[in-house]
Amino acid sequence: MLVQDLRTPALVVDAGAFERNRTTMSAALPGDRLRPHVKAFKSTALARELATAGHRGFCGATLRELHGLVDAGLGDDLLLANETVDEAHLREVVASGGRITIAVDSEETIEVAARAGVREVLIDVNVGMPRCGCRPENAGRLADRARQAGLEVRGVMGYEGHLMTADLTSKAELVAASMELLQQAHAEVGGDIVSGGGTGTYAINRWCTEIQAGSYLLMDTHYGASEVPFEQALHLLTTVVSVDRAGGWAVADGGLKALGMDHGDPSIDDAKVWFCSDEHTTFGPADGAPLPHVGDRVRIVPAHVDPTVAYHEQLHVVSGDEVVDVWPVDLRGW
Amino acid sequence: MLVQDLRTPALVVDAGAFERNRTTMSAALPGDRLRPHVKAFKSTALARELATAGHRGFCGATLRELHGLVDAGLGDDLLLANETVDEAHLREVVASGGRITIAVDSEETIEVAARAGVREVLIDVNVGMPRCGCRPENAGRLADRARQAGLEVRGVMGYEGHLMTADLTSKAELVAASMELLQQAHAEVGGDIVSGGGTGTYAINRWCTEIQAGSYLLMDTHYGASEVPFEQALHLLTTVVSVDRAGGWAVADGGLKALGMDHGDPSIDDAKVWFCSDEHTTFGPADGAPLPHVGDRVRIVPAHVDPTVAYHEQLHVVSGDEVVDVWPVDLRGW
Repeated sequence: MLVQDLRTPALVVDAGAFERNRTTMSAALPGDRLRPHVKAFKSTALARELATAGHRGFCGATLRELHGLVDAGLGDDLLLANETVDEAHLREVVASGGRITIAVDSEETIEVAARAGVREVLIDVNVGMPRCGCRPENAGRLADRARQAGLEVRGVMGYEGHLMTADLTSKAELVAASMELLQQAHAEVGGDIVSGGGTGTYAINRWCTEIQAGSYLLMDTHYGASEVPFEQALHLLTTVVSVDRAGGWAVADGGLKALGMDHGDPSIDDAKVWFCSDEHTTFGPADGAPLPHVGDRVRIVPAHVDPTVAYHEQLHVVSGDEVVDVWPVDLRGW
Repeated sequence: MLVQDLRTPALVVDAGAFERNRTTMSAALPGDRLRPHVKAFKSTALARELATAGHRGFCGATLRELHGLVDAGLGDDLLLANETVDEAHLREVVASGGRITIAVDSEETIEVAARAGVREVLIDVNVGMPRCGCRPENAGRLADRARQAGLEVRGVMGYEGHLMTADLTSKAELVAASMELLQQAHAEVGGDIVSGGGTGTYAINRWCTEIQAGSYLLMDTHYGASEVPFEQALHLLTTVVSVDRAGGWAVADGGLKALGMDHGDPSIDDAKVWFCSDEHTTFGPADGAPLPHVGDRVRIVPAHVDPTVAYHEQLHVVSGDEVVDVWPVDLRGW
């Protein structure tokens, strides 16, 4: 199939950029030094590319992501990098046959894990972002509690998500301070694993035994601004459906239901995005550039990759004018 | 099924509020005075509720929405309230057997419609929002062009979307000025239909023969602020998975992939939302209120209903503690 025959709006992945992103990260973090985070792409087909390249352990943010990976034969070592108290759902995933480790940060989540038949956990430690994770000083006590409940504690997890796009002049220092908290907790907890990090900190986080990165594969404008060595591989392919030459704007057929908007508007090369509505992006040309014509194709750069992908059924892998593969986004929903 | 047994995050529709919203609008705009816009809810099951109440004509923003309505037996009179140049897809929808009218605003969209076998069109007129629609002064010429191409021109459409949440002191005047443009175009175009309006203007738009409203059924905080007589019927049901009592925050298990974020953060009664991340909403209690406990259920109010629903597979209709119906969101995607 040719790219020009794709029905729009459609997510397209540049095969070359994807492959360069993948190999750059695999060279920096080979094998199980990287635990790719499937939440960024929600596709077992894409995950299989990573497994083939030697990354056999994955993490996810939802139980459905883990279950789908097991069903796809990618369940060697899966981490739910998140808390859950859904005992019934957790029991289903444990019964799926994969090796399932889950994050716990409270007595309640430990009890649910034990009752659901989970065997292995990480103690999730808050390292500075107000989200999940126990206080570092409570990590040892929770590890004891988990062991009393019959769970094996494989180590700790702490996600410095608040530092992913921190200013470069202070990022290294801030990450070091954040990881100091995780090390303190690890000293109390024990175990082999110290899990954390992401696309924005993978190069400087030398405290974690494994890095939970996922966005680096497809990228977005938000990460793109933080000087990581990854290329924009994901675009929303759209078609111009209306042009107002007197007003100086054109309208593409992809909008709020095709793009994650929490990081603000998407962007278009050589153009200025005016605004997005449900199924449209209105934009004007950059200085001196001509307006497009009705029927022209326009590539929109998403501002945030993860919630963008979650709107779509497929990732179309393209090389030049050709669609060379289609990866179903089969890990959507909950 | 009980609400407490729903897997979270899950969209829940309050059956009573939905029914009151539906009847309020049906009383104001009975029968074909209302052409419900399915983009807001993307569910043929919900559309069937409206058809049963006498609204047999629908509009949609995507060809998939129209095709799904036809397949569900709801294809009596469908309007694509949007432009398309996808001739192959349009031909498929025309062949589906429903009565299909599409909006056109250019020679290109007219030619595509004629080639795809479309029989009926509306001339889409720009009434003040920089998106689709021809200039009013060009509407007559385009209608002539459409008739030359063998299309029946049923009338005009013009969406005053920029005025939906306008300040009440000026809204009536602004809508009148906007609809004056549509009337000028209609005088040149002819036909029985003048289509436009929405949840925010349905009560004051007396120029349109039919109103394209959809958000009124489920509602969101954005429309809720514009003093329309509709209740919040849609919530995102979540579960608290982590609480930091020292820090004063709790974390619910629904975030950016469960909520449309273009209107900003969602809200929670008696709480202050701190921020959303992919699968989480971090929030603190309002002044004096206690923090919830791990395992508690929390209802999040979406800021924008349309892109919120588009993330979900089902709408769970609830009455008190019971789930009384499940409406598949079967019109997602493109």
